[in-house]
Amino acid sequence: MIEFPHLKIYSGGRAPNPRRVQIFLAEKNITVPTEHLDINKLEQRGEEFKKINPLGRLPVLMLEDGTAISESVAICRYFEEMVPDPALFGRRPEGKAIVEMWQRRVELGFMMPVATAFRHLHPGAAHLESPQIAEWGKVNQPRAREFMEFLDEELAGRDFIAGGEFSIADITTFISYQFLKPARIGYPEDLPNLQRWFQDMSQRPSTLL
Amino acid sequence: MIEFPHLKIYSGGRAPNPRRVQIFLAEKNITVPTEHLDINKLEQRGEEFKKINPLGRLPVLMLEDGTAISESVAICRYFEEMVPDPALFGRRPEGKAIVEMWQRRVELGFMMPVATAFRHLHPGAAHLESPQIAEWGKVNQPRAREFMEFLDEELAGRDFIAGGEFSIADITTFISYQFLKPARIGYPEDLPNLQRWFQDMSQRPSTLL
Repeated sequence: MIEFPHLKIYSGGRAPNPRRVQIFLAEKNITVPTEHLDINKLEQRGEEFKKINPLGRLPVLMLEDGTAISESVAICRYFEEMVPDPALFGRRPEGKAIVEMWQRRVELGFMMPVATAFRHLHPGAAHLESPQIAEWGKVNQPRAREFMEFLDEELAGRDFIAGGEFSIADITTFISYQFLKPARIGYPEDLPNLQRWFQDMSQRPSTLL
Repeated sequence: MIEFPHLKIYSGGRAPNPRRVQIFLAEKNITVPTEHLDINKLEQRGEEFKKINPLGRLPVLMLEDGTAISESVAICRYFEEMVPDPALFGRRPEGKAIVEMWQRRVELGFMMPVATAFRHLHPGAAHLESPQIAEWGKVNQPRAREFMEFLDEELAGRDFIAGGEFSIADITTFISYQFLKPARIGYPEDLPNLQRWFQDMSQRPSTLL
């Protein structure tokens, strides 16, 4: 276990983005002191927290000198640089570019439509997304499904999203997949490769947390 | 000038994402043989090009072994690794995390609302975004404006988006700013720091291309 006792993470429990960082750190075997804010009470949007992140979003990593790093992937990038092994952003120029490509494909093609469907359709997200536009939410449900079909074809030939090794792109896909239900998008039970990948991911100790 | 004659970029002319890569390469003093597809004819969505990028999007970098890298930032990342100076993704763990944070803040808070307003409101974008949902487009116009106000406050204390050095976050902000007009969002003539930053950016040889 690699400890960073002088850093601090402001997290948001089980929400997808805070979980992205949690899983990433567990894969790296890193621990950082963590404080959980109550996102249901919108603590992250209060005046107190906006001194730390003016955009009012979680998670945030506080460095020892008081520098606050927001955005999940930026926090992951910091720890990738501090603890290079296992490499979760790829190795060498080509591998790093391929991980970045898949990370962004999944964010734009899957995470974003899933989040959009949730935020615009779920009554419990009304405080996060105002106004909710149901038509826009509904357009995004089949887009997420289409992307899963694309992923299923891709995963016919390999074990992980970005190639032969586990990467941050798997984490992003996993937390999005786990959000299908609140987004009211059907689980892809007819897509065998994606199913197999999800089962494999579900058995990693990092995702059981 | 650093030449990569064995690589090839499939680009899309003046569209924002292809331009992101163009400006990045110019800042690095890199040249790569480039073929421009006609995005108005949707050549990037044709069967021929989908063999290169199944998602039908530009730009794409073709490596010598036939590996195709899509997503602008992944292409930029490849060249950052190949030609580290000048560093456009930051230096050292903290600097890299700060650039990643700003890059993502700008993508989510500015580029995305500007692109959404354009795609859902402009008649010329009807072939790109179907269905166009005018209500969603209109919600995004004031969000882009709000983010510009936030940027203006930030730029009171520094020259570049992510700190004291030019980075990819400046490029992302610049191409988004140049897209305000087609997105029917007013130029921020009342925001002096953002104006000053934009004037500085406009005078860089890379952005004149």
